[in-house]
Amino acid sequence: MNFSDDPRPLILVTNDDGYDAPGISHLIRALSGMGRIVEVAPDSPQSGKACSFTAHDQLHLRRISDDGDVLFYTCSGTPVDCVKLSLHHIFAQRRPDLIVSGINHGGNDSVCVMYSGTMGAVLEGCIVGIPAVGFSLQEFNWNADFTSAEEVVRTIVPQVLRKRMPRGTVLNVNIPYRKEFSGYKVCRQADGYWHKEYIDVNTENEEDLVFFTSGQYANREPDATDTEEYYLNRGYVTIVPCQVDLTAYRAMDDFKYLEQ
Amino acid sequence: MNFSDDPRPLILVTNDDGYDAPGISHLIRALSGMGRIVEVAPDSPQSGKACSFTAHDQLHLRRISDDGDVLFYTCSGTPVDCVKLSLHHIFAQRRPDLIVSGINHGGNDSVCVMYSGTMGAVLEGCIVGIPAVGFSLQEFNWNADFTSAEEVVRTIVPQVLRKRMPRGTVLNVNIPYRKEFSGYKVCRQADGYWHKEYIDVNTENEEDLVFFTSGQYANREPDATDTEEYYLNRGYVTIVPCQVDLTAYRAMDDFKYLEQ
Repeated sequence: MNFSDDPRPLILVTNDDGYDAPGISHLIRALSGMGRIVEVAPDSPQSGKACSFTAHDQLHLRRISDDGDVLFYTCSGTPVDCVKLSLHHIFAQRRPDLIVSGINHGGNDSVCVMYSGTMGAVLEGCIVGIPAVGFSLQEFNWNADFTSAEEVVRTIVPQVLRKRMPRGTVLNVNIPYRKEFSGYKVCRQADGYWHKEYIDVNTENEEDLVFFTSGQYANREPDATDTEEYYLNRGYVTIVPCQVDLTAYRAMDDFKYLEQ
Repeated sequence: MNFSDDPRPLILVTNDDGYDAPGISHLIRALSGMGRIVEVAPDSPQSGKACSFTAHDQLHLRRISDDGDVLFYTCSGTPVDCVKLSLHHIFAQRRPDLIVSGINHGGNDSVCVMYSGTMGAVLEGCIVGIPAVGFSLQEFNWNADFTSAEEVVRTIVPQVLRKRMPRGTVLNVNIPYRKEFSGYKVCRQADGYWHKEYIDVNTENEEDLVFFTSGQYANREPDATDTEEYYLNRGYVTIVPCQVDLTAYRAMDDFKYLEQ
């Protein structure tokens, strides 16, 4: 593919709910007119796939359509595979100016950033040095109303295309499920975890125990007033700048006892 | 399972190469005598599975054996599933004192921490507040010599069991493939990325392009003298304290323009 002569911003769009999820259709619609869109979406649901990639298997990339504005492929792998493979094949001559992932059906605030396939694609952007934004709506319903979520995309993306991002950072945007927002807030990731994560399907036989995934989110710092949770609960769109350097710098001295 | 009366440290062991990988056998052997071992290993290879978990499918946990020192299960999911599911079922009465993951066949330095299933299990420990260490040997060979890697496990684990870890931190330990080490070094994650990631299997037909995963690691800061790469290349065992708060605090002000 050669986009070298196209003056428009080049935008890679992906998600983790799969090519047929309403969320990615709403994302494409919201991005309309902002650039040349290349949609590379998983051909099957990839929720919870995090930064995983296909290590030892063939990957398929299938060109579905191109109307001059939206070039559309599906990919047989994870969201990270979608990004990696499109950079290898579709964007070999010109890298995208921006990766946009979502709109996810369900929030990706707090530790969900570690599990989310939507955010996996965004973090891959961070790794390879391409600006990236993930959008997630705090509502799982397949038929959710994405009207105000589209408005968030139309508000944030043009600004990000214009001002770029500091290298090594990408954005995790979470959108409360409501018609009107209290505002947009840049804040830090909330500290929390999931518990009550399984339904016991069959625990009679220790040689073949069977479970099904469930789970509830628990906020570890309910009194904090500077986190995603605080602002989401008050009707704000939250914007967390993310990085992929996991080094716990503040704890480095605590582990010096291991040096020799 | 009730470990309440067992005075020994309770150690959960997992990996991403699967229950039959030599690396996890060497890990179990190295941990011998340090506590009550509960091995919960994936029943199939899970390399590159990152923090992914099984979102919409049944999970199986199968008890294989128990010799009084090592209680051994296999799990049908990812390394994160192994940790989550064992906390739900096996450790419902008493949580493990430590999670140990590995010994991985291949390094998990730099951005590999984001892709690695071995480190996915360790980061899950971080999320749920259990001390955790991942061990990775810088050699992919299935029949690699793990003698000195076992020595690293025997050096680090007893210290970590004794001194614990600051909450919110876990360890990523990488082991150079050599008989003698220059030392053990606590350092920061290296900044790098993977490129040349695919072999073109069939790119004749845009309606079904086929690729196979490959790839080379590229170091973004070859002149840095405080990273994993610097020390690994000089024969040191590297120890990076990791966290799961991805907030890029230094960049928060740069994105204030998005607030409203």
